[in-house]
Amino acid sequence: MKLSRLGEFGLIERVRRIAPTSRDVRLGIGDDAAWVRAKTDTFLVTADLLIEGVHFNLDWTSLFDLGYKTLAVNLSDIAAMGGTPAYVVISLGIPRRFRSTQIEDFYKGIRSLASEHKVAVVGGDTSVADCLIISACLMGHAPYQPITRSGAEVTNDIYVTGTLGDSALGFELLKNKPAGMRKDLASQLITRHHKPTPRVAVGSLLARERLATAMIDVSDGLLQDLGHIAEASGIGATVWEERLPISRAYHQLEEKHGRRYALTGGEDYELLFCARRSDRRRIEKLQGQTKVPIARIGTCVSADEGILVLGRSGEPVSFPAGGHDHFKKQPVVRNT
Amino acid sequence: MKLSRLGEFGLIERVRRIAPTSRDVRLGIGDDAAWVRAKTDTFLVTADLLIEGVHFNLDWTSLFDLGYKTLAVNLSDIAAMGGTPAYVVISLGIPRRFRSTQIEDFYKGIRSLASEHKVAVVGGDTSVADCLIISACLMGHAPYQPITRSGAEVTNDIYVTGTLGDSALGFELLKNKPAGMRKDLASQLITRHHKPTPRVAVGSLLARERLATAMIDVSDGLLQDLGHIAEASGIGATVWEERLPISRAYHQLEEKHGRRYALTGGEDYELLFCARRSDRRRIEKLQGQTKVPIARIGTCVSADEGILVLGRSGEPVSFPAGGHDHFKKQPVVRNT
Repeated sequence: MKLSRLGEFGLIERVRRIAPTSRDVRLGIGDDAAWVRAKTDTFLVTADLLIEGVHFNLDWTSLFDLGYKTLAVNLSDIAAMGGTPAYVVISLGIPRRFRSTQIEDFYKGIRSLASEHKVAVVGGDTSVADCLIISACLMGHAPYQPITRSGAEVTNDIYVTGTLGDSALGFELLKNKPAGMRKDLASQLITRHHKPTPRVAVGSLLARERLATAMIDVSDGLLQDLGHIAEASGIGATVWEERLPISRAYHQLEEKHGRRYALTGGEDYELLFCARRSDRRRIEKLQGQTKVPIARIGTCVSADEGILVLGRSGEPVSFPAGGHDHFKKQPVVRNT
Repeated sequence: MKLSRLGEFGLIERVRRIAPTSRDVRLGIGDDAAWVRAKTDTFLVTADLLIEGVHFNLDWTSLFDLGYKTLAVNLSDIAAMGGTPAYVVISLGIPRRFRSTQIEDFYKGIRSLASEHKVAVVGGDTSVADCLIISACLMGHAPYQPITRSGAEVTNDIYVTGTLGDSALGFELLKNKPAGMRKDLASQLITRHHKPTPRVAVGSLLARERLATAMIDVSDGLLQDLGHIAEASGIGATVWEERLPISRAYHQLEEKHGRRYALTGGEDYELLFCARRSDRRRIEKLQGQTKVPIARIGTCVSADEGILVLGRSGEPVSFPAGGHDHFKKQPVVRNT
């Protein structure tokens, strides 16, 4: 049904029926505010704003995937603190041309990931807009001391979960569809782009075991996010290019750009963290426990050494500047 | 400085310096998530999305006032539950033409109201956008049982705080500036439009004393918001037009529209609540305590009587349909 016929309150009612809830929600969608249980004496809050034409393009992304990814990127932020996600609030600016089924698909995408993590949608706001605007605010519990960006120390190891560069390479393939490309491999990467896996369990275990000294999720690109840890912790970092974990699909399709996407491509939503050298065996054990690959990719050095990528023979590797700054660069559509 | 020169991270740093904080914030702006204290075992969450050209127009509103109002409307939602506001997250979509001082003014507006209510800005997200987009998510504590929309009962009295219609009439004057209008009076109404007073103390006392059976804030217009209480509570309502509290300025400038703005104009952010007849004296006492006028404007009747406005001699008064539905109506620029 067209939104102009259904109306704002009709839409809210449909959303209320789809939106996942939990037994910790005392009062969900439909009042002036949601009312929820605080299960720990502190909590974590993160927010993301996604705008059509800036962060995503509806020609490339389904509303379902967009819902999935909206939640995923926020879950990833809570994961990067070692927290347990719990409640999300979603505000939407919706163009008049939209049909209610599109918004329902968006919430179904959210629900598909929310149920896995026992996250409840507890409220939000709705408005007309010229383009689709998605604003999410996720709250999580903090059963363990959260891991910030600022605790890394010189001689710490640097680790990353999963594989890097898949999302950025997948996005490239999505836009350009080069001829002769193996579709099965491309499709794996594109799925990684549309449906990143937030590493909530790994983040939580790292906090519980007090293993990570500093942590961030890789949203802006490995080097930029490592830069955030380095700056907050007052350290430098050396990364071994050879150790960067890449997927089989990335390996087979990467020829042109080598490790560039793994170093500077964004939106992998893997966890990047530092840990003491003495904890190497415990990190390996954690990898076995969670079945999530964890690669040791570098070491923390003193701040004046900056951030350096070393090639196979130990030579410094130069790489094109990457990462993302909303205001400094020209508008480029990312497909969040 | 132009945002294109300052960059996203430069802007975040400036915002961090202006944004108010509190001793309950363990970790504020600058990490993957904020980390804050939960002082009660439940908490309240509300969100608002404000879009340039839909909710506000920068020709009529300063960035400072816009910041103030962004926080005010969210505080009002927490007030309407009887909660205590604590932490706010602000996401902004910012056009490239903006200068950083404009965004700083916006946060100064937030700060001016935040400090009064001991609210901390703990995070958010920033993006480029074609128009200014403001998304706020406010969390509050719930020291008392929250007051929902659904507890009103037949024979309950209906009350409203402050005065009604000032904001909508003020907005009208802001747009049309009629000749010969008394500027001092107009300016009072326009200020009420730009800087509504969230009734946090009254809401909290009503919850503490368990005096309100149902409550909502008047954001969409008295009749529409009363309709929300009526629907959620399964009641009808009779309102006496003569009893609607209007300001001196409204009274002197209202000639053309009578009580229309008081009945259907939105954005007053007063509290509308129901209470038992036996509690009339306690409500009067509360009025004395808080120094906020509280007017008894009607009574709860059975659902089948609907919502009726009665004139001076008890005759039903008809009024033009009002209130606000984002999708059903043609786009009308409201000024937040």
